[in-house]
Amino acid sequence: MLYDRELHEECGVFGVFNLANASELTYYGLHALQHRGQEGAGIVVSDGEKLNSVKNEGSVRFVFPESVLKKLQGNMAIGHVRYSTTGGGGILNVQPFLFRHGEGDFALCHNGNIVNSKELRRNLEMKGSIFQSSSDSEILAHLIKKDYRSTRLDALKEALIYLEGAFAFLVLTKDKLYAMRDRHGLRPLSIGKLDNGYVVTSETCALDAVGATFVRDIEPGEIVIIDNNGIYSDFYSRDTEDKICAMEYIYFSRPDSDLLGLNVHRSRKECGRILAREAAVEADIVIGVPDSSLSAASGYAEASKIPYEMGLIKNRYIGRTFIEPSQALREKGVKMKLSPVRSVIAGKRVILIDDSIVRGTTSKKIVEMLRQMGAAEIHMRIASPQIISPCFYGVDTSTYEELISAFHSVEEVRQLIGADSLAFLSMDGLKEALGNRDFCHACFTKHYPTHLYDLIENANKDGKF
Amino acid sequence: MLYDRELHEECGVFGVFNLANASELTYYGLHALQHRGQEGAGIVVSDGEKLNSVKNEGSVRFVFPESVLKKLQGNMAIGHVRYSTTGGGGILNVQPFLFRHGEGDFALCHNGNIVNSKELRRNLEMKGSIFQSSSDSEILAHLIKKDYRSTRLDALKEALIYLEGAFAFLVLTKDKLYAMRDRHGLRPLSIGKLDNGYVVTSETCALDAVGATFVRDIEPGEIVIIDNNGIYSDFYSRDTEDKICAMEYIYFSRPDSDLLGLNVHRSRKECGRILAREAAVEADIVIGVPDSSLSAASGYAEASKIPYEMGLIKNRYIGRTFIEPSQALREKGVKMKLSPVRSVIAGKRVILIDDSIVRGTTSKKIVEMLRQMGAAEIHMRIASPQIISPCFYGVDTSTYEELISAFHSVEEVRQLIGADSLAFLSMDGLKEALGNRDFCHACFTKHYPTHLYDLIENANKDGKF
Amino acid sequence: MLYDRELHEECGVFGVFNLANASELTYYGLHALQHRGQEGAGIVVSDGEKLNSVKNEGSVRFVFPESVLKKLQGNMAIGHVRYSTTGGGGILNVQPFLFRHGEGDFALCHNGNIVNSKELRRNLEMKGSIFQSSSDSEILAHLIKKDYRSTRLDALKEALIYLEGAFAFLVLTKDKLYAMRDRHGLRPLSIGKLDNGYVVTSETCALDAVGATFVRDIEPGEIVIIDNNGIYSDFYSRDTEDKICAMEYIYFSRPDSDLLGLNVHRSRKECGRILAREAAVEADIVIGVPDSSLSAASGYAEASKIPYEMGLIKNRYIGRTFIEPSQALREKGVKMKLSPVRSVIAGKRVILIDDSIVRGTTSKKIVEMLRQMGAAEIHMRIASPQIISPCFYGVDTSTYEELISAFHSVEEVRQLIGADSLAFLSMDGLKEALGNRDFCHACFTKHYPTHLYDLIENANKDGKF
Amino acid sequence: MLYDRELHEECGVFGVFNLANASELTYYGLHALQHRGQEGAGIVVSDGEKLNSVKNEGSVRFVFPESVLKKLQGNMAIGHVRYSTTGGGGILNVQPFLFRHGEGDFALCHNGNIVNSKELRRNLEMKGSIFQSSSDSEILAHLIKKDYRSTRLDALKEALIYLEGAFAFLVLTKDKLYAMRDRHGLRPLSIGKLDNGYVVTSETCALDAVGATFVRDIEPGEIVIIDNNGIYSDFYSRDTEDKICAMEYIYFSRPDSDLLGLNVHRSRKECGRILAREAAVEADIVIGVPDSSLSAASGYAEASKIPYEMGLIKNRYIGRTFIEPSQALREKGVKMKLSPVRSVIAGKRVILIDDSIVRGTTSKKIVEMLRQMGAAEIHMRIASPQIISPCFYGVDTSTYEELISAFHSVEEVRQLIGADSLAFLSMDGLKEALGNRDFCHACFTKHYPTHLYDLIENANKDGKF
Repeated sequence: MLYDRELHEECGVFGVFNLANASELTYYGLHALQHRGQEGAGIVVSDGEKLNSVKNEGSVRFVFPESVLKKLQGNMAIGHVRYSTTGGGGILNVQPFLFRHGEGDFALCHNGNIVNSKELRRNLEMKGSIFQSSSDSEILAHLIKKDYRSTRLDALKEALIYLEGAFAFLVLTKDKLYAMRDRHGLRPLSIGKLDNGYVVTSETCALDAVGATFVRDIEPGEIVIIDNNGIYSDFYSRDTEDKICAMEYIYFSRPDSDLLGLNVHRSRKECGRILAREAAVEADIVIGVPDSSLSAASGYAEASKIPYEMGLIKNRYIGRTFIEPSQALREKGVKMKLSPVRSVIAGKRVILIDDSIVRGTTSKKIVEMLRQMGAAEIHMRIASPQIISPCFYGVDTSTYEELISAFHSVEEVRQLIGADSLAFLSMDGLKEALGNRDFCHACFTKHYPTHLYDLIENANKDGKF
Repeated sequence: MLYDRELHEECGVFGVFNLANASELTYYGLHALQHRGQEGAGIVVSDGEKLNSVKNEGSVRFVFPESVLKKLQGNMAIGHVRYSTTGGGGILNVQPFLFRHGEGDFALCHNGNIVNSKELRRNLEMKGSIFQSSSDSEILAHLIKKDYRSTRLDALKEALIYLEGAFAFLVLTKDKLYAMRDRHGLRPLSIGKLDNGYVVTSETCALDAVGATFVRDIEPGEIVIIDNNGIYSDFYSRDTEDKICAMEYIYFSRPDSDLLGLNVHRSRKECGRILAREAAVEADIVIGVPDSSLSAASGYAEASKIPYEMGLIKNRYIGRTFIEPSQALREKGVKMKLSPVRSVIAGKRVILIDDSIVRGTTSKKIVEMLRQMGAAEIHMRIASPQIISPCFYGVDTSTYEELISAFHSVEEVRQLIGADSLAFLSMDGLKEALGNRDFCHACFTKHYPTHLYDLIENANKDGKF
Repeated sequence: MLYDRELHEECGVFGVFNLANASELTYYGLHALQHRGQEGAGIVVSDGEKLNSVKNEGSVRFVFPESVLKKLQGNMAIGHVRYSTTGGGGILNVQPFLFRHGEGDFALCHNGNIVNSKELRRNLEMKGSIFQSSSDSEILAHLIKKDYRSTRLDALKEALIYLEGAFAFLVLTKDKLYAMRDRHGLRPLSIGKLDNGYVVTSETCALDAVGATFVRDIEPGEIVIIDNNGIYSDFYSRDTEDKICAMEYIYFSRPDSDLLGLNVHRSRKECGRILAREAAVEADIVIGVPDSSLSAASGYAEASKIPYEMGLIKNRYIGRTFIEPSQALREKGVKMKLSPVRSVIAGKRVILIDDSIVRGTTSKKIVEMLRQMGAAEIHMRIASPQIISPCFYGVDTSTYEELISAFHSVEEVRQLIGADSLAFLSMDGLKEALGNRDFCHACFTKHYPTHLYDLIENANKDGKF
Repeated sequence: MLYDRELHEECGVFGVFNLANASELTYYGLHALQHRGQEGAGIVVSDGEKLNSVKNEGSVRFVFPESVLKKLQGNMAIGHVRYSTTGGGGILNVQPFLFRHGEGDFALCHNGNIVNSKELRRNLEMKGSIFQSSSDSEILAHLIKKDYRSTRLDALKEALIYLEGAFAFLVLTKDKLYAMRDRHGLRPLSIGKLDNGYVVTSETCALDAVGATFVRDIEPGEIVIIDNNGIYSDFYSRDTEDKICAMEYIYFSRPDSDLLGLNVHRSRKECGRILAREAAVEADIVIGVPDSSLSAASGYAEASKIPYEMGLIKNRYIGRTFIEPSQALREKGVKMKLSPVRSVIAGKRVILIDDSIVRGTTSKKIVEMLRQMGAAEIHMRIASPQIISPCFYGVDTSTYEELISAFHSVEEVRQLIGADSLAFLSMDGLKEALGNRDFCHACFTKHYPTHLYDLIENANKDGKF
């Protein structure tokens, strides 16, 4: 994918227990997870007595200038990066949420999406709860508090049973860190060790970034509790399965992350190799759409023995404050995010690798650009199957209407984007590339691992992500 | 008073109903109330369907650049300026608070202080409430929601009965504006008319700022409801009294505001006149501490026939980002906020008028500066009585230890600040200046209009303001 | 005057020699001179070896955050605040100018205006000079360098002879500070002592601000040289006179400054007293336009025995980023800079004191506001004579067309601004108020102390200031 | 290369003639050249009458927010991005320089370095010139002005004869654009066509970015003049040669640029291929240091048939305000710019491709990181010859002391960086990769195409770059 990354996930989470400079480590951890969300960031730190919070709209380095980071003293912390705050209450939806409570303050943050949030919210409101954000994540806090007399862990376990959907939650109290994953295992969450402390993260790339060693992934349905006595495990449910989101491999995660022991770059490269086998075509060069499709492209090139070239360049200096070219300038050919390399492409039969097609609009633009640069033929190869159904678990695959493959055959899509040929990786090919393990492939197959609590047709229409 | 204004109040509120550009009017209204708080500002606007919120730490013009203000579309709004966010959760304590609720979103903001907040909070938490701020104001929201089945107005009336202390509250729903004042009338709140709409404000100076006409003050215990059918009045309590805070006249309010029909500048000037009568002294010039004591100084000068001079200049270009002089530079004489005018003061017997003495530290500094500039004699005259007891109603008069007059006689205070003579306005003098009306004078007399729910000695120690 | 201060001067300068933290002292000095220009600020510091510079558009505190100020190490410095950079090359016209030269770097800054700058510039260009700014001040640098072989002091003296007009110049080399004033004495420049070092400043208020003691004013035509051997005096011309700009007393300078031994507040108050004598009228209250007319108003009140009231309030929280009300809102009555106090004004016969009238537009607005607030009569009294001719010496009194009194009688002006009566201070009154000393009154009398090098009619039309 | 790019070039230039929205096009052009300098940016635009300038420290998008860009109206413009302003006068050294002159304002900007700048500067100062920056580029402006009576073109031609070294200059007057290249052809400069106008740029990637078509490269010694009559060519010297800087191919330029008809990515890939032939080694994977070495790595992989893997990930969210990890954190393993991919590297024999070695410190760090990640063997291959001598033509290859290969054999360097084997591309290999054309290889061979005017040993020591 490209341009503004057509797919979006909600968040990344990162937690630290018993390490000096917990907020700094969280800063570097969140920085390594920045690709999971650039629109909001926050850290809550505990010094053993009090929880302090800083959060704001913007990227990690924007939200935390040095003077601000310094104020967050303590050796426990949780942090969060968020994909989007548009249409969602702005700063109020930025996490972690910090709750002040006579029995002990606590903070929580969340990656994923709760599918029965409307029902839970309505129910909680009936019992007197009021909400300050439109975020799903606030629901857990209210659920925890409802049963006031039990222990925190019991409260957590009971609360989680009510939640259906995808989640990786971190909860921080003044002296404990809780980390939990939904019983379907949809969102990743891993534990690492650093000196005498622990680190919890959405992706393992953040472990390397802070110098921590990978310990293990948290299991579906598991609650890991870390306090001064050590690290414990409990389960809120034993009815679990291991259906991690396939898109984490295909698109979201950083190539240097390992998910359930499988490296992301490797899995992408393998997708490319299998794609070359499944959908061979005669051509002069293989090029990938930077950055996320480069691994698949090099896999395709290797398997097909066709040279891998750098045919598209991504400008590295794009940022939020960049001025978009006007329509008039765009028509003249002004481009700023992605540049085709004329001398590489001109006169060549090109195999163009992309990781996925959502709406198809950017694919169309790239094909056009390559034609203008003189490509003789353009054979588009997609390193994942057709996306035919929306996601309800924290990926912004929009509504049906926005999924080009939901209503169009491969041949129709080919015509719409203007390529000379088009092929997608098969579901079997994807399974093979992911080591034949189980995973969630609802967007490719409509087999949702959870009940949906609403008509698919209405799903995701409130733009609440 | 001077320098950083030794006294601080919590807030100012401003509301608009049925006027185009409601958020812009609120912006100019809050700007006119900026002296009531510079550390946080927020606006919630309703377009008849949805409530939108922007708030942040900083002054009105900092929080609302043009691009941000433009986003707040609608013809109803409430806004808030806040004195301090230090020690209070930062952005999370900035108002208005916006609550998302299935039965209808609502927003609220507050000027004042609730004296039984701890008790109410504890009680609400027992029933399952969780809080996101340490602000008193969030309590009202939870109280309203507790009784879910009644009408909003009934819920409000019932909720307000639980609150003891000082408050002026504004509540905004998608189509209604509620404005209410505590039953003791401690904090001001006035209504104005503009075209076909209404404006509600902490001080009348904000009515003039937006071109509105004064209608009337809201009465103690009253709830004013404004909706598309017009304006209504109800009372949550009939057990009321009219004890507006004397400090609003003496120090807080802008000179161009009228409180209960009495102009602030006029009342200050009258304090000065009566002080001249009560505490005459032979001298060459009368000078006031800018800005709030200039009215009293000119009153004293007029009554005493001693010339009024500009003996102290306040630098207008101070701001949050200004670098404070180091201790070394300060000892050399570097000053940036207040400059004595040497050629006005040198060799003169000076009557120095200030509106009040809290800790006495700044009075001491000013007396020292005047001596260095060659004043022959310095006669300090304070245009209000001695502050002997802390405030619990939204004025930051700190704890007992910080009130110089709580433990020291007038003569002792004189020696501590180094003046040649010192006199305070009498309580009778203050009453006369305020037109012999009733008002809260607890800080001068310890006669608190409400129960305090705690030992005075512990009061205000949590820095929660 | 008011609102945006209708009159503008170019600059203020401040220099420090042989004092630790020279840049910090300059920062506080410039801060005290900030009223002389808010649109640009700069400091050049010498550590004895090298000159370092920071300058930018904006106010002193904006241009010099703490991190920036810290970088300017050394014990010699010069600094500058500038009124306007609009239409003048932006940052390039901000001073001080720093010149890199094999024979020794030097920096210079300037308050005033050179009347033969066009001729000098043309001449220098013919000889090969190129200019990077449109500022007059760069000319001196080129003149100094033209005669390469003489000593720096001889070069300065020779160069200054070419300059006609108003100037106070500071020049800093790595180990010397030069301060010089034009031979007519149009712009002020004073020396102070602090510990073992010296301070030079446009106004004495900045001496008090940094704790320095006034030594003496620099004389017209004098060059003061300060180096490690002490302080020296020389003159570039003996054909001198002492014609300081009257507007420095009337409007520009801070009330706590003394110019040639005469305090600014005192001289303004005296103007008010004499005006009361010259233009008495029966009325209920005297009010002044804040801030610069308050001294004159209190003088008028004292002399006339009519009470001095606070009838106009200036909002202190205005700043560059403030959003101006739209025309529609302004028509509704939204105002943000100046508020009339209704309860003070309503029903009263008001004497309104202002320091001067330039275009008359703001006087008209104030009179209108007072009428709307119910003033019974409005008698405008101006504490200086009519401005009938432009200034060429660094005051932005625009072109003839913009001077209401250049083409209108007092009665015509009265009608235009809508007052019930209008009177100006007489020239004799002004002379008396200024202690019968000599001064430049060209704007009141057209008697210019220098040759003008151009038709008055064309003067100042290029907005080049 | 990596991290902070160890090599730095001074600048990129971009010019537009006769195109609406010239400043916007320049903005997008500079954005495409941003890799040539991120520390300063500027644009001067002409509307046919006047030249207007905006420049500042920072990246293109930081210096030109939309509100600022809009002010630059006109259909001619030149712009500049600058590598570093540290140690160079800050904002004063940011280009273009704009000179105000009675005979016509003009602006200029420059990529490269003049080797006889000290001599020229001294000479100009003797004749009365004064300089405001420490930049070489200001010299040309002074040279042009020295001969006042000739035409601008004659003046330019005469002036350029004095300059020795590397340069691509753009000069803009109100109605003409001049573009010129040094007679050795060291720095690139190309012309493109867009609608009825022209575009000039340091690299062709900026032509594609604005939708322009490549016309031709400007020749060594050539001056191209564009005005309303069309486009002309002249030469300031016929003693020319075509020695473009090899580093432009190896490191500086963007992979999608073509220099003298040769694509940069292709030439890098070819370097990799030849390197595989020259320095084969048995291994499991080939990895490149992102971003500039990826082309060479893929070439090496293709030629060697060893799989190309993504073994190092560069964090895309680094920026100026990012907080560097403290020493303590770095020792713990916190890293933020470059992350090795453990699961790709562990247990593998790795061929690590980098484009060049300057100091060797980053190579050492990468080798260490790979070892920590469990690499079995690390064979470093450098896709260019050893850098043994400093550059004087605008590349910041520092002094001798900072060039590891200046004093160390290949074996010594291998030991210092800790690799298992190390090999560099041969000079013959580089020539072959660059199509056997002529180019400047002084940094590899000490054969400087110009006289140096100073001892090599002292060269570049003043940090003037």
